[in-house]
Amino acid sequence: MANPAIPFELDRRLAGDTLPVAPMDSGPLLLMNDRRWPWLILVPAMISNGVGAVELHDLAPETARRVHEETDQVSAALKQVTGCTKINSGALGNVVRQLHVHVIARSEGDANWPGPVWGFGERVAWEMDEARGFIDKIRTALGR
Amino acid sequence: MANPAIPFELDRRLAGDTLPVAPMDSGPLLLMNDRRWPWLILVPAMISNGVGAVELHDLAPETARRVHEETDQVSAALKQVTGCTKINSGALGNVVRQLHVHVIARSEGDANWPGPVWGFGERVAWEMDEARGFIDKIRTALGR
Repeated sequence: MANPAIPFELDRRLAGDTLPVAPMDSGPLLLMNDRRWPWLILVPAMISNGVGAVELHDLAPETARRVHEETDQVSAALKQVTGCTKINSGALGNVVRQLHVHVIARSEGDANWPGPVWGFGERVAWEMDEARGFIDKIRTALGR
Repeated sequence: MANPAIPFELDRRLAGDTLPVAPMDSGPLLLMNDRRWPWLILVPAMISNGVGAVELHDLAPETARRVHEETDQVSAALKQVTGCTKINSGALGNVVRQLHVHVIARSEGDANWPGPVWGFGERVAWEMDEARGFIDKIRTALGR
């Protein structure tokens, strides 16, 4: 858990590109504000030795286990809600170093299929009503 | 572990694109035969109900835990050997459905930095001597 002396603060680029979905035990779950793909981001809210987490392999074993388990829970929920062809999950962080794990629903024929979503084309914002409905479905699937 | 009645068989596209590094407890660890990036691939050799694994979130909890732990071990070893800027890890599988987890060493200024490696440009094969030396370093870092 976060050290209360150094409160966790969501990276402002992540905050600006996303909508909040639900608090998970690891940290906030976010929806990328890009309706081309159903795209969730889990941000482990860990601070260790005064520094936020950057690499999954640097997390303490118990913390890593929780992040991996919650990533798998989010993947299962996203697949259930979307009926997608394939989940793409990954931790890149070449631009935003604050540790965050992408979980994306990919379907045949979607934008840039079967290539990756990262760095492809221009973001297309969700309509707010549509995003709210999608977020409700994800929360229900997660039981949160 | 794999059901002995249905032996695990590495996807022929994965086999054709890679060099073997070491057997891990989860399954084979491979080196992508592309020297643009130090790029390892862990292939969990699970068969469940006669079918090979496709999604991380469909693995049995104990199996998933081992795969995640070994992915983190491979990431730490790759970072130690390369001194890279950032590890990129992910499970995509849009083309090859057999479950496989990518672990890639990224450094500022490398090919397509800070974009993703998947789908970018043309593969550049390793020189065999160079690959052998790199594989030895990874094995040593993993203690295998």
